Amino acid sequence: MTKPVVLTGDRTTGPLHIGHYAGSLRNRLRFQDSHEQFLLLADMQALTDNAHDPDKVRHSLIEVTLDYLAVGIDPAKTTICLQSHLPALAELSMLYLNFVTVARLERNPTIKDEIRSRGFGRDIPAGFLCYPAAQAADITAFKATVVPVGEDQAPLIEQTNEIVRRINATAGRTLLPEAQAVIPPVGRLPGVDGKAKMSKSTGNAIALSASPDEIAAAVKAMFTDPQHLRVEDPGQVEGNVVFTYLDAFDEDRATLEHLKAQYRRGGLGDSKIKRRLEDILQALIAPIRERRAQLAKEPAYVLDVIRNGTAKARSRTEATKRDVVEGLGLFVL
Amino acid sequence: MTKPVVLTGDRTTGPLHIGHYAGSLRNRLRFQDSHEQFLLLADMQALTDNAHDPDKVRHSLIEVTLDYLAVGIDPAKTTICLQSHLPALAELSMLYLNFVTVARLERNPTIKDEIRSRGFGRDIPAGFLCYPAAQAADITAFKATVVPVGEDQAPLIEQTNEIVRRINATAGRTLLPEAQAVIPPVGRLPGVDGKAKMSKSTGNAIALSASPDEIAAAVKAMFTDPQHLRVEDPGQVEGNVVFTYLDAFDEDRATLEHLKAQYRRGGLGDSKIKRRLEDILQALIAPIRERRAQLAKEPAYVLDVIRNGTAKARSRTEATKRDVVEGLGLFVL
Repeated sequence: MTKPVVLTGDRTTGPLHIGHYAGSLRNRLRFQDSHEQFLLLADMQALTDNAHDPDKVRHSLIEVTLDYLAVGIDPAKTTICLQSHLPALAELSMLYLNFVTVARLERNPTIKDEIRSRGFGRDIPAGFLCYPAAQAADITAFKATVVPVGEDQAPLIEQTNEIVRRINATAGRTLLPEAQAVIPPVGRLPGVDGKAKMSKSTGNAIALSASPDEIAAAVKAMFTDPQHLRVEDPGQVEGNVVFTYLDAFDEDRATLEHLKAQYRRGGLGDSKIKRRLEDILQALIAPIRERRAQLAKEPAYVLDVIRNGTAKARSRTEATKRDVVEGLGLFVL
Repeated sequence: MTKPVVLTGDRTTGPLHIGHYAGSLRNRLRFQDSHEQFLLLADMQALTDNAHDPDKVRHSLIEVTLDYLAVGIDPAKTTICLQSHLPALAELSMLYLNFVTVARLERNPTIKDEIRSRGFGRDIPAGFLCYPAAQAADITAFKATVVPVGEDQAPLIEQTNEIVRRINATAGRTLLPEAQAVIPPVGRLPGVDGKAKMSKSTGNAIALSASPDEIAAAVKAMFTDPQHLRVEDPGQVEGNVVFTYLDAFDEDRATLEHLKAQYRRGGLGDSKIKRRLEDILQALIAPIRERRAQLAKEPAYVLDVIRNGTAKARSRTEATKRDVVEGLGLFVL
């Protein structure tokens, strides 16, 4: 019985932070045993809105790999591979672009939102508009049937499956499986400032390599309930960043529920819940930071992980490309 | 002194006709000695508006190669290669899509015209909108500096050069040369029915494999000047399909000018100019048809030509891809 294939990955635009940990890295540790897992270092996708800064994309790729290994991704169980070094992904992307209309790409809600949030207007790079086809290539090249995505990314999987159905219909048989979007239990973690998106560039993230002082400072600066001025005042738990983080990281659910009730009633100070969160984050990040620092001293090993994973991914993705090309009745020399 | 590189090719959507001969094949015979010439069998580009019919694309590829060899393209001098088997072209295409905006692609006059003439509207396949970037990949992957194109295709070369300039600017040095569009002396030949576009599908073309009877019938059916009813009437030379073809194929220019003057004055019958044209076309096509029939009996040889050309093209295009990737500062494993 072969394990189902799960594909995820990250755009290589900077080191990962605890938002990535809560939302995806944690789940990937679980998938390592139950699934055949591929992690794609998406350097080509990173270029779709960073073409002006290839240096950042290049540097980040090693950072992200260090993050993977530091949290416990095991290269013996999970294949870490580099998108730009898998030509079949580009070849399938170019092929799939013929099976999707411009109008359909423009209707994609994820693309629409991102065009708006990045302020592209009509000057959107063509690569950005086309990335749903590239993502379909990534997913199908590995014949992944399980694709963990954020809630806002689910339309991209629907787009992938539309392309899959068109390819299969043209071939007259099932060349490619449809994929299922799996929305992780913990959604996107807000930044320490309460802003919806945690990101290194806005300085509201806690990196997986954060020092004890950085963690302490981040928790200290964290937003709580602005109306909760005195310890005895009743406080809001919803939208309170500290509780949102506790929800994501506190494994003692019973105590957490108890604290929430107390905070709501009044009589629980922000300093106490922050202390609790800080302890949890320090305990979570300390071993990651240490492993990461250790791994950073072994660049040859890290490169080998990428190299071996990419070699394995190459034979997998080349095989799929051959299936598709032959299945569609295209010429094979 | 290395020879300049010239790149042309054909979408593999059907066998070639004398319109291709007049407008491009003939020039390619000349380029064989003066230039390093690559001919691209553009099967991936053919798919941009034939994704529903991969069989046609596959069959046509051999037909087009037979046409090349039959007219005298010499594989020892010209490299015939297969687009779908050159992964670097897809990889560069995906990269270049990040260096061009959707708005810019939509403004491209060639794309605009073709969208209109094919009746795509908003349901244009994304691959079709993106093909200027793919064409830029084709041209630059060979570092071609000379690109013979029809007049209506010149904007595509301008688009290529814009991408080249952006790549070079991002790299901070000249990674890729700009290309020059060369408009062949003979423009697009009309169909035998006088319609602007000669194409097999509308039945107004003379194939390079046409039989003597087919040639005779096509010339017989050819439009002349509808006002030229009697031999002694003055006739129009401009827009007269027979004279347009004579302009393209009659090498005895002095006699042709003499005949034009006589036709304009009156006293030259359509049957005489048609006879002259038929003789010229029969003489032109006979050896091509014979060589083509001979080559069609040697499929292994034809495949070898494509295989060897593609292998040579692969190392050339891979080298360029490496130059671009390294030059931009992207990661190389």
